[in-house]
Amino acid sequence: MSSLPAFERLLASLERLPGVGPKSARRLGYYLLKVEDSEASLLLSSLSEARERTRACSVCHALTEVDPCALCTDPTRDTALLAVVEEPADVDVLERTHEFRGRYHVLGGALQPLRGIGPDDLFVADLVTRVAGGGLSEVFLATNPNAEGEATALYLARRLKPLGPRVTRLAFGLPVGAALEFSDEVTLSRSVAGRREI
Amino acid sequence: MSSLPAFERLLASLERLPGVGPKSARRLGYYLLKVEDSEASLLLSSLSEARERTRACSVCHALTEVDPCALCTDPTRDTALLAVVEEPADVDVLERTHEFRGRYHVLGGALQPLRGIGPDDLFVADLVTRVAGGGLSEVFLATNPNAEGEATALYLARRLKPLGPRVTRLAFGLPVGAALEFSDEVTLSRSVAGRREI
Repeated sequence: MSSLPAFERLLASLERLPGVGPKSARRLGYYLLKVEDSEASLLLSSLSEARERTRACSVCHALTEVDPCALCTDPTRDTALLAVVEEPADVDVLERTHEFRGRYHVLGGALQPLRGIGPDDLFVADLVTRVAGGGLSEVFLATNPNAEGEATALYLARRLKPLGPRVTRLAFGLPVGAALEFSDEVTLSRSVAGRREI
Repeated sequence: MSSLPAFERLLASLERLPGVGPKSARRLGYYLLKVEDSEASLLLSSLSEARERTRACSVCHALTEVDPCALCTDPTRDTALLAVVEEPADVDVLERTHEFRGRYHVLGGALQPLRGIGPDDLFVADLVTRVAGGGLSEVFLATNPNAEGEATALYLARRLKPLGPRVTRLAFGLPVGAALEFSDEVTLSRSVAGRREI
């Protein structure tokens, strides 16, 4: 509808959001047009406020409203255990498992040589400094289980192991609830190779 | 993460959007936090601008930035043909088919007696006035193919037929690309009942 230029511009903005295609942009757009002023203001103010108040922790690079972040200063966390993740969102995901009680280091991505993203583009140097500073018994590499994440984990393992701590990686295997029949061969072979006594 | 109250409030706002659950709210939230200021401003300004500039057409109730809307004033459209739809978005969907060359009337919803939504809550009275005004050869009822849309179409047919024009309804049948085997019985029986010579 070329007769609605302002609406079309809103749709174009919405389509730039992750996971939003032309159809969901339209659905969101119509909703955002007809929603009450109070609701629209709430959305706008919560976005501005979250952007103003949230920054990266100067220690671990996770999102925080106070610096250093609550995880870095929490005295109940195990300071000898450090998890390395790609993105701030990954901290959130790992926290929700309640399986990890150490601290974090966010890399800000993974190595992508083909796109020109090397160690200097990630928070690798200060990870090495943190590990070299001592006091860590284990560095847990929780980068994504894909090609970039694996390459990043291998690279970091090579740099961090000489510094002393045990270096571990996420376990690979079948997702809980999955069926053997529908699992891919790579995952299944990792699951067999990593089989554990029960 | 209770240590990020501003971010949590943003997530709560995002979760109120249609089609956005907790996981996609988080995905959007992290994106909106780390996106450039210029990109965030563009989204905010396009939303405010679209809300300010867009209103309902006083004739057909579709969305417009000029009143009456471009469809109502377009001299190339067939003024003897009127499509009745539930929502402004439906005008958009029908326009993209390029099958309909008449004008529109948006009801603002469908009859839902169980939720207390009757004809007085929709733009039915002025639809009747439009049709009674004469000049129409056909009123095409393009309400949704569900229970509420069907009931609304039957109700409108009863009220509009005595006023003169032919009253038509969307064709029901199998979706293009569908397989007989996986179609539901109601759709298949409608498709058989409405079979056409080729």
